[in-house]
Amino acid sequence: MTREIGIGFLGMGNVGSVVAATLLERADEFAARVGAPLVLRRVAVKNPAKPRDVELPPGVLTDAADEVLTDPAVDIVVEVIGGQGDAGDYVRRALAGGKHVVTANKELIAKAGPELFALAREGGAALRFEPSVGGGIPVISPLLRDLPANRVQAIRAIINGTTNYILTSMAQRGESFEDALAEAQALGYAEPDPTNDVDGHDAAFKLSIMASLAFGTHVPSTAVATEGIRSLTPQDFQYARELGYVIKLVAIAERRDDGVLARVHPTLLPDSEPLAHIDGVQNAVQIRGDLAGTLTFQGAGAGAAPTTSAVLADVLDIARTLAAGAAPAWDPGDWRSGETLPVDALETRYYLRMTVVDQPGVLAQIARVLGDGSVSIAAVQQKETDAEQGTAELVIMTHAARELAVASALVTFEGLDEVREVNALLRVEGGA
Amino acid sequence: MTREIGIGFLGMGNVGSVVAATLLERADEFAARVGAPLVLRRVAVKNPAKPRDVELPPGVLTDAADEVLTDPAVDIVVEVIGGQGDAGDYVRRALAGGKHVVTANKELIAKAGPELFALAREGGAALRFEPSVGGGIPVISPLLRDLPANRVQAIRAIINGTTNYILTSMAQRGESFEDALAEAQALGYAEPDPTNDVDGHDAAFKLSIMASLAFGTHVPSTAVATEGIRSLTPQDFQYARELGYVIKLVAIAERRDDGVLARVHPTLLPDSEPLAHIDGVQNAVQIRGDLAGTLTFQGAGAGAAPTTSAVLADVLDIARTLAAGAAPAWDPGDWRSGETLPVDALETRYYLRMTVVDQPGVLAQIARVLGDGSVSIAAVQQKETDAEQGTAELVIMTHAARELAVASALVTFEGLDEVREVNALLRVEGGA
Repeated sequence: MTREIGIGFLGMGNVGSVVAATLLERADEFAARVGAPLVLRRVAVKNPAKPRDVELPPGVLTDAADEVLTDPAVDIVVEVIGGQGDAGDYVRRALAGGKHVVTANKELIAKAGPELFALAREGGAALRFEPSVGGGIPVISPLLRDLPANRVQAIRAIINGTTNYILTSMAQRGESFEDALAEAQALGYAEPDPTNDVDGHDAAFKLSIMASLAFGTHVPSTAVATEGIRSLTPQDFQYARELGYVIKLVAIAERRDDGVLARVHPTLLPDSEPLAHIDGVQNAVQIRGDLAGTLTFQGAGAGAAPTTSAVLADVLDIARTLAAGAAPAWDPGDWRSGETLPVDALETRYYLRMTVVDQPGVLAQIARVLGDGSVSIAAVQQKETDAEQGTAELVIMTHAARELAVASALVTFEGLDEVREVNALLRVEGGA
Repeated sequence: MTREIGIGFLGMGNVGSVVAATLLERADEFAARVGAPLVLRRVAVKNPAKPRDVELPPGVLTDAADEVLTDPAVDIVVEVIGGQGDAGDYVRRALAGGKHVVTANKELIAKAGPELFALAREGGAALRFEPSVGGGIPVISPLLRDLPANRVQAIRAIINGTTNYILTSMAQRGESFEDALAEAQALGYAEPDPTNDVDGHDAAFKLSIMASLAFGTHVPSTAVATEGIRSLTPQDFQYARELGYVIKLVAIAERRDDGVLARVHPTLLPDSEPLAHIDGVQNAVQIRGDLAGTLTFQGAGAGAAPTTSAVLADVLDIARTLAAGAAPAWDPGDWRSGETLPVDALETRYYLRMTVVDQPGVLAQIARVLGDGSVSIAAVQQKETDAEQGTAELVIMTHAARELAVASALVTFEGLDEVREVNALLRVEGGA
């Protein structure tokens, strides 16, 4: 054992505390695996006086990030602050100074990945981010190290535990979105401000990272067509179930001849799809490669312990390379800018729920509008009539149709007196 | 691009042909990824004159393995011969000569792993074997590189596609083992001599490798309690289904305080277990780590293209390290010899099917024998009576009981006139 590998932390919240505690408790095991001891040198936090779950060695805590970033005894910086504020600045400075960085910051990688990888390359440093996607499920490593011979064709994933917990509650207990959200918040599965999760942004960041790695093209999160789950109602879950489907927030990226189409939205999945059975806070990622076929990776997508597993996988891998006297060579590639496609380019099946005037000829009129746009109806059901309002509820499943044609039909519906409201338009994936 | 990375092949069957074809077709992509061109130098086969699916560069084919093993321009040797004969000798010589080796040979790694890793270390070479388990599903890489911070507690896997195809046919179509085997053979899913698959040896080799990596202890395949699927009958599938179970050949390894208990046998799994729904030639591996929780990896566990994905993951990873001027540092560890436990140490639930004399008092007698051994009955059903023989068929599900106690009860049953035959004794996993 010739040298020590110094570890510094930026932030020490739930995840950071478990990472630090594990590093301290398993120091001997990790030293044996790596070939050198890992030593916790510096931990920068906002308030060093705050009580913590982990007992850190004396003199390690500081309120100055600089003490982590400039300490020559710190080889690897673990960034667990999150967000785009200070964290991004710190990561840039660490890489520019030749420090290796492990980060769980999906927003930072999704938005600034190519810039940061270039910085890392110039500084001779490694930038690793396995914990940014899928908690303890290996996702980044499979894409980079296990499937490099494949042409990846598609990724489909349930990668936000908060929304999956809410959708599972709505499906299994017929709850409203508001009630299911409140319950998730009470259990700590959703944050007080749930925007980032329920509006799909968190899933879009993660899909951005996975798609960029899989296709070698930077797919920024702004190029991911993103819809959240706020507008889903118990009726949609009930009707979906009657048709043999469940509703999940699915992140999908596909390679087309002319570019990458990436999207996050509530999706009807048939019961026959494995992703339809990923419930609660579980996550699952499906990667389809031309050699390996479809691989599915499933597990806990969040939580301090699973995320610690991913942080330490990256830390130990860098440390092992350093202990062997080599530079960490692993590089996520250039993410050349390439074509990304708008969701308009999509062709898929659709589920449509609408409230119409309950009188003869209305269904024929709706069918004609859809037919004029070459949207072919696979099934139509009249669900409920409201005698007082004189309205009926229609649920329509289409065959594969062009997104633009469906959107155009909706515009026409809005101009029809007989259509009171288009209540829901959901995309359908998989199965027949 | 400073140097070329030379690749040699030992064997060129189904898998080797696809590996070679992919190396040739994607040469430019791989050179960009690796930072150096990969060049196919030598391919040793028994009969160079035989027509092949892949068009190899002129002068590459030879019938002398020595030409691969001694060619200084060959950096990485891909061994796709299989078995324990010549392949083991060649791999030893390659490693001793400092050549890096990628092998799909599960029998070789399971039996001679520790010896080969020591050879590799002395020769300064890498020995990689991702394709030996799970076809295109990453299994070795997650255990070594993605979960190093975890204490792995258990592995449960369906890792033999042949038997899973046969069991799926038996479950879904009520076929006999013989018919389902014949069908699998006709489709190419089972070999003319199916022993290695249907008797559980192939699964035991794979479990041996996974358990040794997970627990850092050599778990030789001879220490894996192994039972095949030949004795399963349509009745067992029917009764299991009525009870809410399916029957799968499951490979299980668990870390206990006093050692590792590893076993491969037909197993009743409740419908609520994800592994219960892995059908046909699909494989799935569950790894339970103390940090990551239970992770499931699913995909095609065999086939030339998926196996090529795994072979080339290893080849490209070694090549990238070589191109960077470093020695491949990745080491599967020492596999220190440690305690492995006999299946006698097991405590689990059991399914028991027996033919008994159809007369009053017999059930009480059987219950007393089990009770005397502290084997508690969870459910008992009388299935069919045979008036001519004067016998009845009993199906018993036990609560968790000690394997030795159940085995001892079976010995007692053999001595009872009232018990005509114990038709089946199967272990039950998961669920309640």
